[in-house]
Amino acid sequence: MAKSTAQTAALLEQYCERLQPMLDWLARYGADPQGGVSRLLYTPEWVAAQSALAQYMTEHGLDAFYDQAGNLTGRLLGTEPSLPAIATGSHIDTVIMGGKYDGAYGVVAAVLALAYLKEAYGPPKRTLEALSLAEEEGSRFPLTYWGSGNITGKYTVQELPHVQDRNGITLAEAIQAAGFGAASPYVSGRREPGAYIELHIEQGCVLERSEQQIGVVTGIVGQRRIEVRVTGESNHAGTTPMSWRSDSLACAAEMITTVRRTALAEGDPLVATVGHIQPFPGVSNVIAGETMFTLDIRHLDSQRLDEYTERLRSELAAMAAREGMTLFWQENLRAEPVLMNANMIDELQQICEQNGIRSRQMPSGAGHDAQVFGIMCPSAMIFVPSRDGISHNPMEYTAPEELIQGFRVLTQWLYQTAY
Amino acid sequence: MAKSTAQTAALLEQYCERLQPMLDWLARYGADPQGGVSRLLYTPEWVAAQSALAQYMTEHGLDAFYDQAGNLTGRLLGTEPSLPAIATGSHIDTVIMGGKYDGAYGVVAAVLALAYLKEAYGPPKRTLEALSLAEEEGSRFPLTYWGSGNITGKYTVQELPHVQDRNGITLAEAIQAAGFGAASPYVSGRREPGAYIELHIEQGCVLERSEQQIGVVTGIVGQRRIEVRVTGESNHAGTTPMSWRSDSLACAAEMITTVRRTALAEGDPLVATVGHIQPFPGVSNVIAGETMFTLDIRHLDSQRLDEYTERLRSELAAMAAREGMTLFWQENLRAEPVLMNANMIDELQQICEQNGIRSRQMPSGAGHDAQVFGIMCPSAMIFVPSRDGISHNPMEYTAPEELIQGFRVLTQWLYQTAY
Repeated sequence: MAKSTAQTAALLEQYCERLQPMLDWLARYGADPQGGVSRLLYTPEWVAAQSALAQYMTEHGLDAFYDQAGNLTGRLLGTEPSLPAIATGSHIDTVIMGGKYDGAYGVVAAVLALAYLKEAYGPPKRTLEALSLAEEEGSRFPLTYWGSGNITGKYTVQELPHVQDRNGITLAEAIQAAGFGAASPYVSGRREPGAYIELHIEQGCVLERSEQQIGVVTGIVGQRRIEVRVTGESNHAGTTPMSWRSDSLACAAEMITTVRRTALAEGDPLVATVGHIQPFPGVSNVIAGETMFTLDIRHLDSQRLDEYTERLRSELAAMAAREGMTLFWQENLRAEPVLMNANMIDELQQICEQNGIRSRQMPSGAGHDAQVFGIMCPSAMIFVPSRDGISHNPMEYTAPEELIQGFRVLTQWLYQTAY
Repeated sequence: MAKSTAQTAALLEQYCERLQPMLDWLARYGADPQGGVSRLLYTPEWVAAQSALAQYMTEHGLDAFYDQAGNLTGRLLGTEPSLPAIATGSHIDTVIMGGKYDGAYGVVAAVLALAYLKEAYGPPKRTLEALSLAEEEGSRFPLTYWGSGNITGKYTVQELPHVQDRNGITLAEAIQAAGFGAASPYVSGRREPGAYIELHIEQGCVLERSEQQIGVVTGIVGQRRIEVRVTGESNHAGTTPMSWRSDSLACAAEMITTVRRTALAEGDPLVATVGHIQPFPGVSNVIAGETMFTLDIRHLDSQRLDEYTERLRSELAAMAAREGMTLFWQENLRAEPVLMNANMIDELQQICEQNGIRSRQMPSGAGHDAQVFGIMCPSAMIFVPSRDGISHNPMEYTAPEELIQGFRVLTQWLYQTAY
């Protein structure tokens, strides 16, 4: 018997109240003494967390099943199974000494959303799937997006079996010990959902500083990682007059200033960061003959990203030449931007407006599973604020009412799309 | 029977020709396979080199004796022993993988000069001493100027017996193994020469670039070593817009540019060097929350050194404040300038002019034993060019004719001062 609007509204409130306790419950799997969470792929803590979630799904009427990579799905079968399924979720793994929101929030919200929808409205027309993806961070093995990658075909479950974690355990050993892998009783992860939507903390301070409650993500930025080396001449810091020096660190310092100046001039959403620098020999009383520094450049528009990067390269090369130094430039990573689905962006924006939720559209500067799904099917992301922009840290925090706001938007979008 | 001027001139030529072979001979003690020299304090190579030099001294009529620190003196007794002795020499130890000129040139030249003077003119009025000082570099134990310091009272031979080398051998063990120390049959090193003069390679490129043959050293610069830390805020390199960053490395980069700009504006002989920098966490995709860098500032004038350093500190503090960051500033080393004796500088300058030798007065940007003697007795230094300014390296090189020019100036000054 269908519930009244008042009844479903009251039920939604009950589910909203479960968000924070369920996040705290999940954070006990891999809890660090320092207050954070370390839940690395295929560790006993990780296995226990997935098992507990599977049990929760089953108890709430979802059809829970694993795939060979260890991705956990809680399925709410639709009445029109020929329609493409809608998946929502995030990743269950954390970085070492991470927080309790990154990934976990999207998983918990997905499970609660489907449980609520089933209880409030019964089965949907389109099948709904809550995903607890095996891995996204790359913190145990150097395989970021392992979970979503096994669904989209970026990886197969037999990929790189010999890659080792810091204790020398191979991926093949770890996956077997966790009870998964190609020889396990589980199905292959490969499939193509009709849509993917991910709720996640922002991991930045844009929403907080602009006093918005929800960020509707326009896309995940593309990224270039470059290693730069400036070579001058090493000399004695005492016996070499200032005007005769070929000081690679002094030259690199001016280049770093140029990076900041040009990135500010280019404007949002471009960001350019020098996070690491290493002079050689790196001794206080020796002029550095060579200096290496890293460049991390991101933009939502691939062409503007390339244009900025190429202009910067020219400018740094000219600076090196003016000082008689040589510039080495090596691109070590190239990730293209992935745009979120325009219709889904519009629908999410409308939901916010209809409900009086302060929202803005924004790119994601960080990587997410949605960028892996986004090249396969219509995808979207919803951000909630991160206090002080802190993430990957035990201090990671989002207030319960902000978590609830994101959950409401997700739930309403799932309802209006699947029912 | 006194020799004629022609005879002494011919004899001097013979001694000049011995310089390079004797340097090559000494370089065999501690020769590296790569072509350099590693002759660390109290090692078997070091002991063998001092023994060989002692034998050479004895064979050339000098009274050779050690002190408890292992300093070797070759004495040519004056006919008026009440007059203060004149000492000349340098250090016998090298850095690890050093060259064959640093220190060794001054030692070899001292021994040859006294041998020549004795053979050409017989005993002087004032006693002359050729010093092969035990240690200057601080490459085995952290005790720079150990040799001259034991003579001037900067150290006693029982100083810091427990200080260890990288193999865990204590100074007390090393000194005893080499046959020296307070329990050895040797005398204490403590004494006060009437003057000290040191011949040394420049270890810089000033003479070479200005096409001078001899540098008459005006003084050894004072030095400040400072550790600077800039603290901003660590954040995600992807999710933090450029205009909201508190990037300590970007701020430090502007400071390094300020160091170079202000040091160039101040002009010679001031030098200011940032040789090392370390951002934290120092990861390519994280904005550095804190950045440490070193400052090495030198000047011959203590007051101008302090004034520059204080101005720089104010300027960097203002830069940090403008960006809302904090500046930590810690002076880790403070060495005052030591001026060389004005009369000796004049006399050396005149010798150069009378002999048509291209010379210039210049400060020493590097430390030398002369700065230890210089606070005790009238002291002077003579520099010869270093090819490409390279030192502390197997590539260290000075042409034989340039070595000879320095030897001539030293010998003439010793002759006119002691006879």
